[in-house]
Amino acid sequence: MRNLKMIVRYDGTDFAGWQTQPGQRTVQETLELAIQGITCEDRIRANCSGRTDAGVHALAQVCNFYTATKLDCATLLKAVNAKLPEDVRALACDEAGQAFDANRDAVRKMYRYVINDTRTPDPFLRRYAWQPLRRLDEDAMRRAAQSLVGRHDFRCFETHWPNRLSSVRTISSLEVYRHEECVRIEMEADGFLYNMCRSIAGTLYQVGRAYWPESKVKEILEAMDRREAGQTAPPQGLFLVRVTY
Amino acid sequence: MRNLKMIVRYDGTDFAGWQTQPGQRTVQETLELAIQGITCEDRIRANCSGRTDAGVHALAQVCNFYTATKLDCATLLKAVNAKLPEDVRALACDEAGQAFDANRDAVRKMYRYVINDTRTPDPFLRRYAWQPLRRLDEDAMRRAAQSLVGRHDFRCFETHWPNRLSSVRTISSLEVYRHEECVRIEMEADGFLYNMCRSIAGTLYQVGRAYWPESKVKEILEAMDRREAGQTAPPQGLFLVRVTY
Repeated sequence: MRNLKMIVRYDGTDFAGWQTQPGQRTVQETLELAIQGITCEDRIRANCSGRTDAGVHALAQVCNFYTATKLDCATLLKAVNAKLPEDVRALACDEAGQAFDANRDAVRKMYRYVINDTRTPDPFLRRYAWQPLRRLDEDAMRRAAQSLVGRHDFRCFETHWPNRLSSVRTISSLEVYRHEECVRIEMEADGFLYNMCRSIAGTLYQVGRAYWPESKVKEILEAMDRREAGQTAPPQGLFLVRVTY
Repeated sequence: MRNLKMIVRYDGTDFAGWQTQPGQRTVQETLELAIQGITCEDRIRANCSGRTDAGVHALAQVCNFYTATKLDCATLLKAVNAKLPEDVRALACDEAGQAFDANRDAVRKMYRYVINDTRTPDPFLRRYAWQPLRRLDEDAMRRAAQSLVGRHDFRCFETHWPNRLSSVRTISSLEVYRHEECVRIEMEADGFLYNMCRSIAGTLYQVGRAYWPESKVKEILEAMDRREAGQTAPPQGLFLVRVTY
């Protein structure tokens, strides 16, 4: 069997997340059915770098799957795209080593959280940004974010997840900047806990609207209690941007 | 009666265009119902700078309407936005002189046509760009476009429209440039014939993909025959950007 690596982009709006669930439209099942339709195999299993939640987008999700097809990668890519619905596209397909595992081998992931902070929400961003109808101070958010960079126990930013062995992660970079009428929060780490990106975004939002002082973020991190942190920001603002192997 | 000027932004994807039509979801009817819901008047009539077709977007459509409401403009704006669905937003509302007519008084309009020319279409652009799955040469398109600038009879770019008195218009500016993974065509003129923007886009596309030489555009203009020009490009790539009074 060949082990293929595929890079996938999707608009998460109309998907119930990555992972296959009975009776739901998911990216995983949509992709697997498209590949099966081309390779004529019964059961393709696409293993991704990290499952995205319902409504979360990906610019470049990475997955791998085993297949016996003889088709070359370029032909397979084109054929799979012809089968896929227009809110998901395969951007690249390459041979991977037999041992490659898109989930286990990911060294770092980068997510972007987008907040459209105009008082009137932009209709073109309603599917691709959080729109809280408030102006934010991105400089205060950027300064507050710096206390999260590095190796920390991030359990305060984790939605309960019973099987987690450790909540220690290393954020290598956390940038906050303005892009047109949005504030973008870009976080790169060796891994993210469940809802960690969205609860960091929800926390920095409270600093950006001056509800919390900048120093509060460090206090939350040290308290190690989820109830201290801000809300989980809504899914439509979150994009998986890049996975590094 | 007060005469109010309102600037409106809409994602045209799920609208059957601006103009009210029985049994269809239109921007005009949606906006008029929202205003009526606030002013408690029976019949608000929103008169726009130029009706956009089904699927066409507007960053800043301008309209005016007469109302007897006593509400100040800022309050009315906020209240109307609270009534509107999230794919249309009022960006501004101001008092206009009694004689102001958003359609008749428009001096120039600027439209943008967006072509996502990657071989794999971007799922995030499917609602907001034409995706012909071909790479285009934007430099050739820019050079070819220059023969359209100025005062010309544009009947070759007009879909049949029986009541039109004259098909002479003046294009004051026609720019073609690359913006990320898209080619943008920006056209400003004193007025546009029916489907003129989209047939200019469809014509320049044929130059961009090297199906026609650059000189063909001038020949089409001189032939004054619609059958000579390129196809009418699809509506989802077209944005009304700006109206000048």
